Amino acid sequence: MNRRSFLEMVGLAGGSAAVYQMMNVMGLAAPSTYTQPSLGTGGQGKKVLILGGGLAGMVSAYELQKAGYEVQILEYRNIAGGRCWTIRPGDEYTELGGDKQVCRFDKGQYLNPGPWRVPHNHQAYQHYAREFGVKLEVFPMINHNAYIHRESGTKQRQGQLMIDMQGHVSELLAKAVNQKALDQAVSTEDKGKLLEALKGWGLLDKNYAYSKSLATSFYRGYDRDPGARLEPGTPSTPIALDAILKEDLWTDLNTGLLYEFHSTIFEPVGGMDALAKAFENRVGRFITYRARVTGIKQDASGVTATYEDASGATKTATGDYCICTIPLSILSQIPMTGVEPKLVDAIKKVPYGPSFKAGVQYKRRFWEQDEAIYGGVTYTDQTMALMSYPANNYNSKGKGVVLGAYMFGPDAVKFTGMTPEARLKEVVRQNTVIHPQAEKEFDNGISVGWHRVPWALGCYGLYSDSTREQYYPTLSALHDRFILAGEHISYWNAWQEGALLAGVTAVDMIHQAASKA
Amino acid sequence: MNRRSFLEMVGLAGGSAAVYQMMNVMGLAAPSTYTQPSLGTGGQGKKVLILGGGLAGMVSAYELQKAGYEVQILEYRNIAGGRCWTIRPGDEYTELGGDKQVCRFDKGQYLNPGPWRVPHNHQAYQHYAREFGVKLEVFPMINHNAYIHRESGTKQRQGQLMIDMQGHVSELLAKAVNQKALDQAVSTEDKGKLLEALKGWGLLDKNYAYSKSLATSFYRGYDRDPGARLEPGTPSTPIALDAILKEDLWTDLNTGLLYEFHSTIFEPVGGMDALAKAFENRVGRFITYRARVTGIKQDASGVTATYEDASGATKTATGDYCICTIPLSILSQIPMTGVEPKLVDAIKKVPYGPSFKAGVQYKRRFWEQDEAIYGGVTYTDQTMALMSYPANNYNSKGKGVVLGAYMFGPDAVKFTGMTPEARLKEVVRQNTVIHPQAEKEFDNGISVGWHRVPWALGCYGLYSDSTREQYYPTLSALHDRFILAGEHISYWNAWQEGALLAGVTAVDMIHQAASKA
Repeated sequence: MNRRSFLEMVGLAGGSAAVYQMMNVMGLAAPSTYTQPSLGTGGQGKKVLILGGGLAGMVSAYELQKAGYEVQILEYRNIAGGRCWTIRPGDEYTELGGDKQVCRFDKGQYLNPGPWRVPHNHQAYQHYAREFGVKLEVFPMINHNAYIHRESGTKQRQGQLMIDMQGHVSELLAKAVNQKALDQAVSTEDKGKLLEALKGWGLLDKNYAYSKSLATSFYRGYDRDPGARLEPGTPSTPIALDAILKEDLWTDLNTGLLYEFHSTIFEPVGGMDALAKAFENRVGRFITYRARVTGIKQDASGVTATYEDASGATKTATGDYCICTIPLSILSQIPMTGVEPKLVDAIKKVPYGPSFKAGVQYKRRFWEQDEAIYGGVTYTDQTMALMSYPANNYNSKGKGVVLGAYMFGPDAVKFTGMTPEARLKEVVRQNTVIHPQAEKEFDNGISVGWHRVPWALGCYGLYSDSTREQYYPTLSALHDRFILAGEHISYWNAWQEGALLAGVTAVDMIHQAASKA
Repeated sequence: MNRRSFLEMVGLAGGSAAVYQMMNVMGLAAPSTYTQPSLGTGGQGKKVLILGGGLAGMVSAYELQKAGYEVQILEYRNIAGGRCWTIRPGDEYTELGGDKQVCRFDKGQYLNPGPWRVPHNHQAYQHYAREFGVKLEVFPMINHNAYIHRESGTKQRQGQLMIDMQGHVSELLAKAVNQKALDQAVSTEDKGKLLEALKGWGLLDKNYAYSKSLATSFYRGYDRDPGARLEPGTPSTPIALDAILKEDLWTDLNTGLLYEFHSTIFEPVGGMDALAKAFENRVGRFITYRARVTGIKQDASGVTATYEDASGATKTATGDYCICTIPLSILSQIPMTGVEPKLVDAIKKVPYGPSFKAGVQYKRRFWEQDEAIYGGVTYTDQTMALMSYPANNYNSKGKGVVLGAYMFGPDAVKFTGMTPEARLKEVVRQNTVIHPQAEKEFDNGISVGWHRVPWALGCYGLYSDSTREQYYPTLSALHDRFILAGEHISYWNAWQEGALLAGVTAVDMIHQAASKA
């Protein structure tokens, strides 16, 4: 019997949970919490009202209608997707306060002001991407050739810092081991293996030193590369440990090691809204666009939302159940009746994080042509925080749009407080500190401060340990016929995966309740 | 004056070398040894005979004809490209010994039996890719989710090993520092900064321990991922240091840190031969195909090659100069007259490395669907050595071709010694040890042992320190009117960059000689 037919047998005997457990034992399963809803056809004759046409709302509608439920989505904007949003040439965006920007990028260029990366371990996203044929391209989250930059003027290639950090730490540890300082912690047998590992992993020479040599340059790169004929390469000089420590140059080296950033990490080809569009193609017919929800009322028979439609008229929509995906920042301002006060209170208790992103179109891809940086992220201690280079159309001759700034917290508020023109000027000024070419190559740009986005009023639900403990269980629960969904009802805050998982679990919970009713 | 106009001024005053030097000072330049040949139009009335239509030969022809030289390429095969080769459905390949294989991959699938990756720091390649519009896609050389595998049964995700190695080494070093073991090596000021760095970079807890926790799982991943609602994630257990040391699980962790593998690293969209095809489009009219060179003769007026043409007839071709890109493994068997014995001797002294690659088409992309591995490389101590997953069409529903084995040396000879069918059977058997699904999903495959490839007789020029010292200077030099080119005339052995740089430098050297003549 092969493993597959064995798994099939396990499945027949014990269902999908047993298969999952067996796959785990066999080392095949990913530890994802996503399981595809399997509602059968039990939804006939029941209606679910969904508030908000972002990913959480649309995945809910998609799964529910497959099971025979009637669904209706009320969406504030005239397009679906919510924070899963791509700004393209000609798009207009008016933020809270009235500042209006028009995207003047060249054809084919775009900015993803919200989510911009898709982890491979976000299995709900990957499931729907596979199902809908959403094409993914690699986002080089680790780019050894991008910089760590400091306002002091320090600018180092990330790969060299990574290698030097490994080297210096290994050299020091080898020194301690050789001085018998760790004889209590490391057995004699392990000691030999450890020294061997430090030499290999830390690129140490025969004296256990991490030194300037062609051997270390084989990893960290050269002052002058090896070439043809009589050019063996000129060794480069490692960055000294005290220089790394003095300016904390190690701080962003681990970013690419964060679980959600593990390679291979992706972006959808052509813009982040690809999955939103794929959902909209399938559930758009259930969406009432330009519907601003003004009140929510639950009673024993269902949930009714009052909304203002495109013409300004007040209308209502009703469901036997309601999945509400409106961000808490907005929902907290909408009167709710018939839900327990504990929930109404909890909704008001979770602040939303401010964040700011600027997309800058440069006239040529100088980061590629002059500096051999292809995609990835440069980190700086300037307030712009980071810069990310386009992860597609490498080596193309025309213009390119970089993410010129992306930060959270007070700096985000500060940037958003400027006029759109002043923001861009400051972003380009800071970009120029890193890339002297930037000022001259600047073309145009557009920026989004999420706390000023009318349909979000913040980037994502920002929990503390205490709000997570006090209010999150209430926010996560089904309240008779009313349930919340969205990235804020997950531990993947600010990620599309959180929205999808919250939507899918809302669907499961409503279906269970409806099946019992 | 801005930097660019400053650079332009430097260029006017001092030429491109001065610009390069100034760009270095400004931190803009890459340390590449590639400079674009600028021959002007001095080639009129002179002919260069080029032996071999691989990248070295074609780049030479391309640059020479631009400068007015007459060029002729003699190529053994009926297509150009040499080792820059892509096998596609329907392609036939007959190896030395007579075994013939037909590629039975599905439409759109392919194997790059030779070079398969393009580093960003290979600036000659990048230059021509830009000039010819060769589209590149990211090759995820570092894939945290691919495996390190041992025949013992050990199978660990690379990202987890990377993180655990950093963690354990940091914990031990912190212990030594806190025990004052390194007080002589580290100043008091640095000691505080070092402990802070070890805590951050090594993910240590407040007691400087690298431990099982949600904090370390935030990097290394979870036993069960965070999810929606009440699923905060279940911490995973770090791999113990002695387990890492016992089986040397760290050995392949640095592979992605090798200079030529630094991200962002690429593959051409649609197959590695994209650059060869782009060159062939431009210089194909100068190529005499199916010309087997049987003799080379230099005299005071030029170089003449005798060759057997497609019909078996003996012919000759002559040039004022000759660039010979025929691999030394073959050139050493071709009679040469009129070149100094030292060169003839040196040509015989460089062995060519054996290597073996197998492309295996599987019926479904189980590595993605079951194991969330998207591109990248799994390393094993089985003789197959490594397995690499397709770096394109992620999440597609159909079949996929993996590089099922790639090794050098004795194991390569052993694999190639089997029949093509037996090789594939063994490759799939070993693949199945890593991926239990492989056996059932096997569809078909094709393999190439480079020492049996009639037009190469080996993978690449394999230098020792001693052959590099004794023979390489002779091989690199211009010998009157005759000069060698190819990856073997570089320090980028086995890389396309070496072939391109050797071609470009050959062109420069011939042009200098011709200009003086």
